[in-house]
Amino acid sequence: MKLAFVGLGRMGSAMARNLLRAGHEVTVCNRTREKSEALSGDGARIAESPAEASRGCEAVLTMLADDSAVEEVVFGRDGVASTLAGTHFSCSTISTAMARRLAAEHASRSQGFASACVFGRPDAAEAKKLIVVAAGRPELVEHFRPVFDAVGRQTFVAGAEPWQANAVKLCGNFMIAAMLEAFAEALATLRKAGVDPHLFLDTVSALFASPVYANYGRIMADEQFTPAGFALTLGLKDVRLVLETAQECAAPMPLASLVRDHLLSAVANGQADLDWSSLARVAARNAGL
Amino acid sequence: MKLAFVGLGRMGSAMARNLLRAGHEVTVCNRTREKSEALSGDGARIAESPAEASRGCEAVLTMLADDSAVEEVVFGRDGVASTLAGTHFSCSTISTAMARRLAAEHASRSQGFASACVFGRPDAAEAKKLIVVAAGRPELVEHFRPVFDAVGRQTFVAGAEPWQANAVKLCGNFMIAAMLEAFAEALATLRKAGVDPHLFLDTVSALFASPVYANYGRIMADEQFTPAGFALTLGLKDVRLVLETAQECAAPMPLASLVRDHLLSAVANGQADLDWSSLARVAARNAGL
Amino acid sequence: MKLAFVGLGRMGSAMARNLLRAGHEVTVCNRTREKSEALSGDGARIAESPAEASRGCEAVLTMLADDSAVEEVVFGRDGVASTLAGTHFSCSTISTAMARRLAAEHASRSQGFASACVFGRPDAAEAKKLIVVAAGRPELVEHFRPVFDAVGRQTFVAGAEPWQANAVKLCGNFMIAAMLEAFAEALATLRKAGVDPHLFLDTVSALFASPVYANYGRIMADEQFTPAGFALTLGLKDVRLVLETAQECAAPMPLASLVRDHLLSAVANGQADLDWSSLARVAARNAGL
Amino acid sequence: MKLAFVGLGRMGSAMARNLLRAGHEVTVCNRTREKSEALSGDGARIAESPAEASRGCEAVLTMLADDSAVEEVVFGRDGVASTLAGTHFSCSTISTAMARRLAAEHASRSQGFASACVFGRPDAAEAKKLIVVAAGRPELVEHFRPVFDAVGRQTFVAGAEPWQANAVKLCGNFMIAAMLEAFAEALATLRKAGVDPHLFLDTVSALFASPVYANYGRIMADEQFTPAGFALTLGLKDVRLVLETAQECAAPMPLASLVRDHLLSAVANGQADLDWSSLARVAARNAGL
Repeated sequence: MKLAFVGLGRMGSAMARNLLRAGHEVTVCNRTREKSEALSGDGARIAESPAEASRGCEAVLTMLADDSAVEEVVFGRDGVASTLAGTHFSCSTISTAMARRLAAEHASRSQGFASACVFGRPDAAEAKKLIVVAAGRPELVEHFRPVFDAVGRQTFVAGAEPWQANAVKLCGNFMIAAMLEAFAEALATLRKAGVDPHLFLDTVSALFASPVYANYGRIMADEQFTPAGFALTLGLKDVRLVLETAQECAAPMPLASLVRDHLLSAVANGQADLDWSSLARVAARNAGL
Repeated sequence: MKLAFVGLGRMGSAMARNLLRAGHEVTVCNRTREKSEALSGDGARIAESPAEASRGCEAVLTMLADDSAVEEVVFGRDGVASTLAGTHFSCSTISTAMARRLAAEHASRSQGFASACVFGRPDAAEAKKLIVVAAGRPELVEHFRPVFDAVGRQTFVAGAEPWQANAVKLCGNFMIAAMLEAFAEALATLRKAGVDPHLFLDTVSALFASPVYANYGRIMADEQFTPAGFALTLGLKDVRLVLETAQECAAPMPLASLVRDHLLSAVANGQADLDWSSLARVAARNAGL
Repeated sequence: MKLAFVGLGRMGSAMARNLLRAGHEVTVCNRTREKSEALSGDGARIAESPAEASRGCEAVLTMLADDSAVEEVVFGRDGVASTLAGTHFSCSTISTAMARRLAAEHASRSQGFASACVFGRPDAAEAKKLIVVAAGRPELVEHFRPVFDAVGRQTFVAGAEPWQANAVKLCGNFMIAAMLEAFAEALATLRKAGVDPHLFLDTVSALFASPVYANYGRIMADEQFTPAGFALTLGLKDVRLVLETAQECAAPMPLASLVRDHLLSAVANGQADLDWSSLARVAARNAGL
Repeated sequence: MKLAFVGLGRMGSAMARNLLRAGHEVTVCNRTREKSEALSGDGARIAESPAEASRGCEAVLTMLADDSAVEEVVFGRDGVASTLAGTHFSCSTISTAMARRLAAEHASRSQGFASACVFGRPDAAEAKKLIVVAAGRPELVEHFRPVFDAVGRQTFVAGAEPWQANAVKLCGNFMIAAMLEAFAEALATLRKAGVDPHLFLDTVSALFASPVYANYGRIMADEQFTPAGFALTLGLKDVRLVLETAQECAAPMPLASLVRDHLLSAVANGQADLDWSSLARVAARNAGL
């Protein structure tokens, strides 16, 4: 297919490269041109603007930092919406409100729109092991399944409304955040009980048999919060977004509120740029450690 | 070795049977004699009281419901403490305060004592797949390692103080409780968002790749809370115990407090005998579902 | 002084009337003209638009429902900002972010701006017993003190930045929300303990000797949540706003989060239009009542 | 009447003195004899033990630190229960479980028992301005009303079961704790907003018109947490007790849980002996202050 890809951070670059490897024709675009050039060796064409990238393509995928970046790339000057004739797949972790706005605006321009959120760290993206959660008009999602298959190992369809995929993505991240908070509290108590954090990590890893527990547990037991795999401020952004979604649905999520407050305390105590698993330090401080 | 086993619920019976299979000589004792008789076919000798079971054995293992059952079996009339010359291994999920009391009382009688807590449901116990978390004097724990190997697939040593194993056990159960609460809140929001709970379960199972998430997630997505794999009141007991341990350590565990309050709300709304994953109903009610 | 007043709900009408009584020349404006006409008997001149009301006046006071109403009245077509040469006093309970935006926009138009938030129910407004919390440039606030004196019994100055008054107003409302939650939880427990809610109300009233406790306590003990003195959705809005302010300041407010979640649960259970003290029902439901 | 009074801390001494002033014949008893001697000038007779004090009196009042002190004074060697023929009024802030146990034990000895809890600081006790919350058999409570009138300004009757008065007392203290937490969070946010804490205190005092808000607010705005009017550890004890009562009633009190966790964090950070309003420091730390 003739595709465009806008937003070449570590995640986006890896996804675009996998699309090229799968034989798709991909035009790329990024705020800083270096990232685009790094992909030209893989066969990517380089566009100077989202508008140029989108012109004439069957689908444009965007992988951006947040709502405001999406706003600018799609609706800004020389944005995607100004030239797109095909479908826009939003892969970014954005608010459900923004996803609904994208759906409405694209519809008013007779452009297709769907969400295609992804779970996985950059190394999973490179290894084509992302989990894709898509949502949108069924024919649309079905038609573009080869695109999803090119970037991930498994695709789940959350519903016919694009924002439903964003809700699932935010709730999935919330599940990880909840795990971090639980680890943080247990480790604080056990440290004060004189138990080696690694002993607990090993026990929990055996209990859950999950790489997510093993990986994050190790970071927390080692207290190795730099370099940040996922910066605490990004985690705070995601937890705020899940709370906004919950509010739209009139569904309280008190555990999300609790994590939000602890992440905020972390920011107030200088941890903004650490890995979000440094939630452990908040629990530790509250325990006088 | 010459062993005794007191407390033949589903967990205890399975553990005692595995001790017999490993070639140990085991005398069993239970409040109701039927459970003991069921094991005599496997070669168990039957004792009429904990005192009789403990007499002359190298180690007695107890697997009981709670602190007060342990109190009665150990210090009550015809209790373990009245005849024991060897070592008492407490496998029950009890308070750290009770574990410290057991350590002190047995020491004053020149009896050995250690904790050997276990993770796993009855089917894991039958399959010899429990995770054992032991704590106590290192020589003691080392000497009895074959006993632990006979009931579990892996043994972790939490420290030299018996109660440290209980702290790890309670914190491990808390990790599961936290996962249940996170699932409960995410599912309530997603139900109101019109997303199929099974879609979310599948996504989260792919994300965490953990059988614990898959199993509990299925129960919650199916809303199949009877028969209870682990009754909600037992879950409430365990969360209360971890909060007591945290209080002894002067370490707040606000997520445990939150789960405690929700389990209490579940009890108040008639869910005492359902599986503890029926925490999902509390979140659902709070969302008006 | 020559003043304008925009927004004639129960609070605004009472405040405008007191300004007239104090001898000020007041032009009024309201979305629906009936409210304006009701004040013409007190000497008010009626304007057809905020722009017309603001033209030539020394100060315009606005008393509106929320951020978006303020946005429209001030910056919309025929809005305050299009004609104002004097100072805008915002009395509405709005976000600190909106107050900062108003300050910046008015400054860019060489218009004065300050916040003059008020505490008190409509009957207190009628009786000239409001508490005024003002913030802005000191000379400005000082110059208009007679205006504040005409509507309230006491004026506090929160700082030189207008949004600081909004922060104080939101935190003050939060203090009331916290009291409601405390009452709600205590009453649920005591009802289940078989204690008469009125007995507790009388005790607490004697203890705190505060009319706020006595009034809200009576509503809660009587479970008389209609007609709503202050609708639950408005309470939810205010608690959300204090959380936004706290987030801007990087200061967690977990009690505000808790109240937010309970108000959201109330909305999800059909209580949107009841008095916000119907928080009592959320605690009652959670206790199985 | 012929009365006995056991427990002569600052509260107890003031109450015993007021009983003497009202013309009652009072025998006093305290662990350290100095406190008893200080009352002999007011006409008190001194007993060497609770048993001696209780012998032959119509009622014995106890005002002690906690459950275990009550346990010892009443059921210990030379305790109240060994000689009492009249009625025991427990004024201490104890658990509802302990109150039920006292009721059962005294009943089994054909002794009367009722709770007579008090609200107020030592200076209120001296000024005979306590609020008394009594509960027990109606005739009993009615008969001894002159005793209550001699120590307080107002008496409320919570029910026919003594423990109901304890539930009311614990819930009353919880209302104060909730106010402290609300103040703590609001002050942390406002400090970061650059607002003077005293400005907020003045506003809130005007809003609630309550001496409790004014007094505690001043301590918090001044950050003057020593000497402790009410030590943080005692506050923690009371909040734990209200949570136990709530648990007995199957009524969650999430705000009490939150305050409990923050008081625990305060203890972990060295604030055990400060006034419990130093909750403000917990909120401040969480905000990075």
